[in-house]
Amino acid sequence: MTSAPEACEPGLLAPGWAGSPAAEATDDRAVLRALLDAEAALTRAQAGLGLAPARAADAVTEAADPARFDAHSLAERARGGGNPVIPLVADLTEAVGEEYGPYVHRGATSQDIMDSALMLVAARTLDLLLADLARTERASARLAARHRDTVMPGRTLTQHAVPTTFGLKAAGWRTLVLDARDRIGAVRDALPAQLGGAAGTLAAFEAYGAADPTALPAAYARELGLCAPALPWHTLRTPVADLAGCLAFAAGALGKIAVDVLTLSRTEIGEVAEGSGGGSSAMPHKANPVRSTLIATAARRAPQLAATLYGSLSAEDERPAGAWHAEWEPLRDLLRLTGGAARDAAELTEDLRVRPDVMRAHLGLTHGLIVSERLSAELAPVLGRTRAKALLTELAGRTYEEGRSMTELLSEVPDLKDLDLGALTDPARYTGSAGAMTDRALERR
Amino acid sequence: MTSAPEACEPGLLAPGWAGSPAAEATDDRAVLRALLDAEAALTRAQAGLGLAPARAADAVTEAADPARFDAHSLAERARGGGNPVIPLVADLTEAVGEEYGPYVHRGATSQDIMDSALMLVAARTLDLLLADLARTERASARLAARHRDTVMPGRTLTQHAVPTTFGLKAAGWRTLVLDARDRIGAVRDALPAQLGGAAGTLAAFEAYGAADPTALPAAYARELGLCAPALPWHTLRTPVADLAGCLAFAAGALGKIAVDVLTLSRTEIGEVAEGSGGGSSAMPHKANPVRSTLIATAARRAPQLAATLYGSLSAEDERPAGAWHAEWEPLRDLLRLTGGAARDAAELTEDLRVRPDVMRAHLGLTHGLIVSERLSAELAPVLGRTRAKALLTELAGRTYEEGRSMTELLSEVPDLKDLDLGALTDPARYTGSAGAMTDRALERR
Amino acid sequence: MTSAPEACEPGLLAPGWAGSPAAEATDDRAVLRALLDAEAALTRAQAGLGLAPARAADAVTEAADPARFDAHSLAERARGGGNPVIPLVADLTEAVGEEYGPYVHRGATSQDIMDSALMLVAARTLDLLLADLARTERASARLAARHRDTVMPGRTLTQHAVPTTFGLKAAGWRTLVLDARDRIGAVRDALPAQLGGAAGTLAAFEAYGAADPTALPAAYARELGLCAPALPWHTLRTPVADLAGCLAFAAGALGKIAVDVLTLSRTEIGEVAEGSGGGSSAMPHKANPVRSTLIATAARRAPQLAATLYGSLSAEDERPAGAWHAEWEPLRDLLRLTGGAARDAAELTEDLRVRPDVMRAHLGLTHGLIVSERLSAELAPVLGRTRAKALLTELAGRTYEEGRSMTELLSEVPDLKDLDLGALTDPARYTGSAGAMTDRALERR
Amino acid sequence: MTSAPEACEPGLLAPGWAGSPAAEATDDRAVLRALLDAEAALTRAQAGLGLAPARAADAVTEAADPARFDAHSLAERARGGGNPVIPLVADLTEAVGEEYGPYVHRGATSQDIMDSALMLVAARTLDLLLADLARTERASARLAARHRDTVMPGRTLTQHAVPTTFGLKAAGWRTLVLDARDRIGAVRDALPAQLGGAAGTLAAFEAYGAADPTALPAAYARELGLCAPALPWHTLRTPVADLAGCLAFAAGALGKIAVDVLTLSRTEIGEVAEGSGGGSSAMPHKANPVRSTLIATAARRAPQLAATLYGSLSAEDERPAGAWHAEWEPLRDLLRLTGGAARDAAELTEDLRVRPDVMRAHLGLTHGLIVSERLSAELAPVLGRTRAKALLTELAGRTYEEGRSMTELLSEVPDLKDLDLGALTDPARYTGSAGAMTDRALERR
Repeated sequence: MTSAPEACEPGLLAPGWAGSPAAEATDDRAVLRALLDAEAALTRAQAGLGLAPARAADAVTEAADPARFDAHSLAERARGGGNPVIPLVADLTEAVGEEYGPYVHRGATSQDIMDSALMLVAARTLDLLLADLARTERASARLAARHRDTVMPGRTLTQHAVPTTFGLKAAGWRTLVLDARDRIGAVRDALPAQLGGAAGTLAAFEAYGAADPTALPAAYARELGLCAPALPWHTLRTPVADLAGCLAFAAGALGKIAVDVLTLSRTEIGEVAEGSGGGSSAMPHKANPVRSTLIATAARRAPQLAATLYGSLSAEDERPAGAWHAEWEPLRDLLRLTGGAARDAAELTEDLRVRPDVMRAHLGLTHGLIVSERLSAELAPVLGRTRAKALLTELAGRTYEEGRSMTELLSEVPDLKDLDLGALTDPARYTGSAGAMTDRALERR
Repeated sequence: MTSAPEACEPGLLAPGWAGSPAAEATDDRAVLRALLDAEAALTRAQAGLGLAPARAADAVTEAADPARFDAHSLAERARGGGNPVIPLVADLTEAVGEEYGPYVHRGATSQDIMDSALMLVAARTLDLLLADLARTERASARLAARHRDTVMPGRTLTQHAVPTTFGLKAAGWRTLVLDARDRIGAVRDALPAQLGGAAGTLAAFEAYGAADPTALPAAYARELGLCAPALPWHTLRTPVADLAGCLAFAAGALGKIAVDVLTLSRTEIGEVAEGSGGGSSAMPHKANPVRSTLIATAARRAPQLAATLYGSLSAEDERPAGAWHAEWEPLRDLLRLTGGAARDAAELTEDLRVRPDVMRAHLGLTHGLIVSERLSAELAPVLGRTRAKALLTELAGRTYEEGRSMTELLSEVPDLKDLDLGALTDPARYTGSAGAMTDRALERR
Repeated sequence: MTSAPEACEPGLLAPGWAGSPAAEATDDRAVLRALLDAEAALTRAQAGLGLAPARAADAVTEAADPARFDAHSLAERARGGGNPVIPLVADLTEAVGEEYGPYVHRGATSQDIMDSALMLVAARTLDLLLADLARTERASARLAARHRDTVMPGRTLTQHAVPTTFGLKAAGWRTLVLDARDRIGAVRDALPAQLGGAAGTLAAFEAYGAADPTALPAAYARELGLCAPALPWHTLRTPVADLAGCLAFAAGALGKIAVDVLTLSRTEIGEVAEGSGGGSSAMPHKANPVRSTLIATAARRAPQLAATLYGSLSAEDERPAGAWHAEWEPLRDLLRLTGGAARDAAELTEDLRVRPDVMRAHLGLTHGLIVSERLSAELAPVLGRTRAKALLTELAGRTYEEGRSMTELLSEVPDLKDLDLGALTDPARYTGSAGAMTDRALERR
Repeated sequence: MTSAPEACEPGLLAPGWAGSPAAEATDDRAVLRALLDAEAALTRAQAGLGLAPARAADAVTEAADPARFDAHSLAERARGGGNPVIPLVADLTEAVGEEYGPYVHRGATSQDIMDSALMLVAARTLDLLLADLARTERASARLAARHRDTVMPGRTLTQHAVPTTFGLKAAGWRTLVLDARDRIGAVRDALPAQLGGAAGTLAAFEAYGAADPTALPAAYARELGLCAPALPWHTLRTPVADLAGCLAFAAGALGKIAVDVLTLSRTEIGEVAEGSGGGSSAMPHKANPVRSTLIATAARRAPQLAATLYGSLSAEDERPAGAWHAEWEPLRDLLRLTGGAARDAAELTEDLRVRPDVMRAHLGLTHGLIVSERLSAELAPVLGRTRAKALLTELAGRTYEEGRSMTELLSEVPDLKDLDLGALTDPARYTGSAGAMTDRALERR
């Protein structure tokens, strides 16, 4: 037993999570700590119910110090039985010593400890993630409020459609972030401890003297700050599937912000820019949208990681051969990928530079056709539906050929003399309920 | 415009959903009906707010009869604009006639109709799915109650571990089904209508005379029996992601039942059998676990379908080029696959034959080692921990070599004379809290 | 037994494949035909080896007419045994009549027929797909040759980097299409028939009189125009996994073309446009990149469908309970999605409108910074590395502030008088080996 | 710049790959080494073509010593630009010193180095993987030869179907392993270096003096021991997709072995056992099939990792924002997961204990019905098809009710007196061509 890994998993291939709070909360050191926390809590819970001496609880708690364990050795010895708890129990028992060693892991199965530890890791990481979502939410709210009336082209299938506002777009981002917060918060608050013993019947605890073993899981959960499980969930994997769902959701929600920023910060569009674009190894002038790129990366990967976890719901017997083992790394990956993406999203939204003037200028790119929907609606009563449609089609063609704006061409049509064409063709006056909806969306807490 | 397809999509490759309620609720006819329902509801909602004549609403509602539309023609013409609403609006407008035709689809975008229609399809299918989950839940509850004390081998990593009960296993199934019900129910109750117009600002409705267009989405939702959306969600895909999550969960939850039955009905195990096993084309005697096989099939496919839907959260702009289109078929597939699996799960659990005698017999397969955990716990105080462990290791070896049971071998150890070895080695008396946990699990409603 | 479905699976939710050659080659009618082809070929192969009367082969071949079978009835009856072959054999046996009925399906298992039929469907669809890939390849080659020297901004992480040519981009598209062709072609040429009998030992054929049953699979494969299998592959799923791989590859390869076109046809970029953009239900002026959108849709879905197929490699026993069944629909989906995407890609590349003038104009958007990499390289020898870098950094800032080009600013630097700044800063003269690489890439056949 | 991580990524959650050759070949240290190898090779290639002084090549090669770099610092600084090459180039340039520092990374883009380095990592890992596949292949061949005539129940949909041999099963395993070897070998031999410069035109190399930059990629590839690329493949991701396909295939192929062993080593079946089953933390007697469990774990995860890689084919522009970044970790994960699975598969097959006596005993579990297919075939000519079928159905029922074997019951039927019922009902004589096919399969090299 030597020192814990000083600095495991640098994350050279993962600029999205390397160095993030989520990285530290999920690396092998954090897992080792959580495994030891789970073992210590088990002995304390038994002591609390009179099933173990209080001094055994103290001894195990004291020995369960990650610095005393060798993660590499544990990882390699984990091969033998297929999980790291088996060698950990051996090492911990030895560390506790002869007198109280027998109280280590008493009555539990490896999966009790692994599952509880991973729920601890999840709880700790989700708290960090929620904090970064809160930052992102606040920053999005500020963007939405500040740009409530900043008009920009609404784009559909890559083409200008009708005007919208940047405020409505940012309000939409915030809505998704709140949706993510709600889903993650609900899952986090329900994360359960695991305790069932060898096949989920709690039988060993009875053999070790518990009058009513069903009291033990709740006591154990209290020690861990997790929820008491309704049943042992060795093969009832609701908590893991729920984590998969809320994390894939959050990654995708942040991914929406990222793809919007990636699009709007293209050289030709330039309506927004990341606060501090990343450099390039070859071209010193480039300011790459790196935060968005890394968030988009997480959003591309998360769904498939979640799929693996959903696939593990089909877990046979009392404890399965593979379905369970296939959860560990994907769950950790989802936690740190999404956690890293939340950090990037917070910075992205806090530092985003918005260029209302560029947005405004782009409204003119289609020579006024961006309000053609409005013109269709408003000319029909004046000219009759058929004539209105024919006129607009004709003018739409001419506007490109002659390079003249719809406003100009329409002003030459005698029958339209009485209309306020300036107002009718002003994109800024065709944003519908964008402002009202932004206000309403910002009321959500 | 000719007759609707009488019987589209036979489902020759899909015995899991062919002919199921979910199949009928999701096929192209059902989609066509929902699209027309969505168009009719839109005109009625506008009429209700005074934005269209009541007779226009009547005319559109009457014309929106699926039997008058040709799904094949619509599907092929959908290529032009990339979705079926564009040709549908053309056909519906013609069907409504010159006077009220202009009120068809007024102010809406294709996605308003598609999204609303798919939410209608989802709502209708989820109601059917919930009914089959309820059947499955009741059948699982009956199994759990009836077999509360039916002892069987608990199996972990494919090997006998310690005893458990079939009641606890069935109670676990029921717990997962209730978890699925809760998740699906919550999502179903929140399914929103979609209404935003070309870029989600509701601007066209204003152009067509609405004083406050924000009243329209709620009115529209009421017509459809769906929830009012907080914002247009053309690129805020929470409802679709939530459907993905709850359906993948449900498929996996039912998959757990399936893999248990597949295992327990193996020829060598035979502890359960499907009520009416499927035949074989080559071997008349075979009774294949077909219901479980088809449920397991759905559970294998659902996670990846859900992954595609989660991936579509990253939808750029006001309406995206691909992310949205990639949702349609996977969402339908998830609905009918999971719907079909629920039908199969209901039949499976209702008709399952359980063989307590076979379970009981299997408890002896390890010559008593199935209670070795208990013996470790109970002999230690008598013999001392070290000696107890050595003895058990020795006897475990001898039990296989000599073909004698642990009970027999233990009875030859003088120091154990005072123990009630019959009780200590009886697997039926080592089920821990299985009964109590089953009772408690069955209290959940 | 009534008529075959006249028009099954309209594809209302699938504008990407509805009405395509691949749709017709994969729908339930095509599957039914392939199943019947497989049954008829089996009897003929047996007759060819003297194991059945020639007249039995004729009778089965004649009876195996899809028009005589009811796909809906088959699909619903498939529930019983979990696959459609069981009811099909019953109906076909009846259709053949008493005398030769016993020769129907003799010695085979359902999976022999299903697998062989799906390989037939795959072979037929891949041939169509290869034809559309060939069109796409030729159109890409034409684009590459025509635009060998059409200079445009090279874009990395959404930002202008250095110049490139549209020819090199199109040559890259062609390279991917050829890679797809090679992979699909190799898989298509190796598609095997399946024949093993109940558990893959060919035992029943011996029971029915074959002296050497191992001759039968090859004879059967010849009848079907497929390859002879090395072993029965009921649970050795190489052919299906290979199909998954080559189809996911092809969908992704075409997806690359699609995302390029989606980007380059954005309103602000407009460097290319689809030949006939799709309309919008709300905005008559819009020309949406619909072909690209539908290809991108396929590319988003294909990887997850392939994942399900790769997952089915883990097929237990001699024939599995679920892994096999989970292949059918995803394989068909992959075939028709990718087939539809190939049709769209052919049209997209054949009709693509390219705007060299717009590309050229965009080279100036960064005021000359698009060649900053070149300037770094070429000024260093003149000014010294440090001074060159400092100068370029200073000028890069000024170019944006003052709205003046790098060429202009550099011309004011006395030390650079002797350089041909016009040439050095001309993006069109900084395309490196784009032309040479395009030429070389076009040599591949 | 301090020491390289001594022991990064313990793999506490990954007993499947922790400590394996693939783990060491893919961890951050290995990546760092490959990145430095790629940088050094680039300078050497340029020197080889006269584009840099030979001493620059020496200086860079000497400085490119992983021990001099701090992976953690690099990982954290990678955030800035989104990849680790940018800080690595800074550190390496500094390490090389003022004189030759300018020759570091000259003309290249980060992606040139990352892609080349990951291909190096892939090549090195695949070589190790191929060695373990070769061990697995040889062990499977030995099992197939040794058990050519070991009869066992063939199982389909979990039920006994007809007899087969363990030899044929092992020959099937070997076939899949050879298929994996062929696919991996072909991909490994084609792994290309990457070199294109900022936007894939090689322009910078020209600016730095190369007369014909197209010679450089081939020279670079030679330095790396990789293939020369046909074109820069920054967004033509064939090599990565090909890796995805062959690794997902290999993981699934090994997964087939694993699920077979998991099934056959169940307590009730016990026809095979892992050489050294893994222990349990709670039940000392358990011998878990740990190797199979860990292989099955890899097989569950690999398809979704491959899906992410296939999804990255849709990479926009000259270098994409996210698609590329999303490849790095999944590619590494696939390499080490599959590499670890190959190690486990080698041990599994080399040490597998096979129990022909148990297999033989199981043939009797269905009281002779395991040969009912044969009886159907052979009694029909004697009794007439209809009577034969009726008789067998009757006897099948009686065999279970009366607990008597088919042989016994058939011997009481007078009309069958002349048949050799012993032979007809002996499962060992109904293995069809299992032996012949095993022999033939073993001929493949």
